[in-house]
Amino acid sequence: MKILLTNDDSIQAKGLAVLWSELKEIAEVVVVAPDRERSATGHGITMDIPLRAEKTSLFDGKAWVVNGTPADCVKLAINCLLEEKPDLIIAGINRGSNLGADIFYSGTVSGALEGVILGFPAIAVSVTEYLNPDYRYAASFISKLVPKVLKTSICSDTMLNINVPSLAPEEIRGVEITRLGTRKYINPFEARVDPRGKAYYWLGGEVVDIIDEASGRDTDVASIQEHKVSVTPIQVDLTNYRAMDTLRDFFDDLS
Amino acid sequence: MKILLTNDDSIQAKGLAVLWSELKEIAEVVVVAPDRERSATGHGITMDIPLRAEKTSLFDGKAWVVNGTPADCVKLAINCLLEEKPDLIIAGINRGSNLGADIFYSGTVSGALEGVILGFPAIAVSVTEYLNPDYRYAASFISKLVPKVLKTSICSDTMLNINVPSLAPEEIRGVEITRLGTRKYINPFEARVDPRGKAYYWLGGEVVDIIDEASGRDTDVASIQEHKVSVTPIQVDLTNYRAMDTLRDFFDDLS
Repeated sequence: MKILLTNDDSIQAKGLAVLWSELKEIAEVVVVAPDRERSATGHGITMDIPLRAEKTSLFDGKAWVVNGTPADCVKLAINCLLEEKPDLIIAGINRGSNLGADIFYSGTVSGALEGVILGFPAIAVSVTEYLNPDYRYAASFISKLVPKVLKTSICSDTMLNINVPSLAPEEIRGVEITRLGTRKYINPFEARVDPRGKAYYWLGGEVVDIIDEASGRDTDVASIQEHKVSVTPIQVDLTNYRAMDTLRDFFDDLS
Repeated sequence: MKILLTNDDSIQAKGLAVLWSELKEIAEVVVVAPDRERSATGHGITMDIPLRAEKTSLFDGKAWVVNGTPADCVKLAINCLLEEKPDLIIAGINRGSNLGADIFYSGTVSGALEGVILGFPAIAVSVTEYLNPDYRYAASFISKLVPKVLKTSICSDTMLNINVPSLAPEEIRGVEITRLGTRKYINPFEARVDPRGKAYYWLGGEVVDIIDEASGRDTDVASIQEHKVSVTPIQVDLTNYRAMDTLRDFFDDLS
C-alpha cells in the first residue's frame, strides 16, 4: 500500500510526524509538504513563481519539501515527483479543527480535495485543539481506517474530512458520520493603527458553532462538542442540482 | 440597490471596469478589490500579515484597494469597510473561464462564495478568453440579470457561476443552466533548469474539456463550446449526503 502524505502546517509540523510514524508501519509513505506554514491558503495554487521541490532527509529520506501550497504539493507529487502512483492521499494531521465553512479556507482540506480531483482516494484529518494538540488518537484512528477505506469505492468522488477531538482515547465517545455544520466568526477583524498612524486589520475573531434545533445534531460541530470523531463526506461536484430546474424557469425570458 | 463588486485580476483590471460601468447605471456600486493579480489563490485568506485597505479615486471614489485575496476583500468589506450591507455581491468579470474544477482554484469564484458564506446573494462572472477578452456582452448580461436575481430566493445558499463566451452578441446562442463538467490539465508542469543547474517547475499545461456521451451535454464546458452563456448553481454545503448512509455502515465496526 502506497500513501502520499501532505499537510498545511509545514514539513516540520508535529502532526505530520506523528501520523507518518503510525502509517509507515502499514504502508510505504512518501511525504510531500510545504516548506512553511500554509494554513488558510484554501485551494490556492502557485502560478506567479516557479515551484521548487527539494529532497529532504526527514521521513527516512522519502520526502520532498515544496515552496507551495498543499494543493501544489499534491499536484506536483502526482505529476512530477512520485515514481509510482499512491493508493491513497492523506492531508494532516492538522493543528486545529476544520469544521463547517472552515473547509473552504483550509489548506489541509484542499490538499486532500486536490487528490480527489486528480482521481485518488483522499482523507483530510485534523485535531480540534490548536495550542496543545494531542495527535495520538487521531493517528491511530487513521491507521485503522486506511486499509478499510481502500476496500470501498466511497472515495471515488468524495473526500473524507475527519476531525478528531484532542482527548485521551478513553474520553472519545465513538465515531459519527456528519454533515457540515455552521461555524461563524464573530468580529473577524481587529482594527489597529500602526506607528505611522495608518489603519490595518488583523484577521482573528471568536469562533461560534451553531448547534440548535434548526441545525440538527448530525453536524460536524455538534459531533465534536460531544467528544466524537466526526467523519464528513465532502463532494468535489459542487453543482446544486436541486437549483437547476428553478433556474431554468427563471432564465426562460433572459435567453 | 447596493452592489459590492470584487475580482481576482486586481483593481486595475479591465473586466472590473467594464462591469462597473454597466452596473453603476442600475445600482450603487462599491468596489473592494485586490491591489495585484490574485488569480488561482482559491479561497485563501490572509492570516500571516495584516490587511490594509486604501481608499482610491477610481470608480468615482467608491472603492478600496486591499492587499489580500478576493475572499479577504469580501470579508473585510462586509465587516469593516462598507457603511451599509450590499444587496448582492458580484466577482468579476474574470479574464478567462472558470469551468469544472477551475472553481476550486479561482479567486473570483471564491470571492463570490465568501459572499454566500456571509449570507449574501452572490454571482461570479468570467469570460472565456484570456488573451483578448471581450467583456461587453458579459457586462450587459449581468446588468439585466441582477434585478431579476434579487427578486428570487435562489441565491440564499447558492452562488451562480456564470461563464460568458467572449463573442459578439449576435454570435451567442442563448443561456444554458449547467452542472460542472470535467476539465483536465494535461502535463500541468513544465520542468526547467535554472542557471545554477537546479530544477524548477512552472505550472501550465494544456486544458482538455471532457465532452462525451458519459459526461452529457448539460455541463458548463459543453455549453461554452456551443457558444452559450453557462449558468451553474454552486452550493456552499459540500456534504455528500448520498454517501452518509454508506459511510454509517462502513464505520459500524470502527467505533
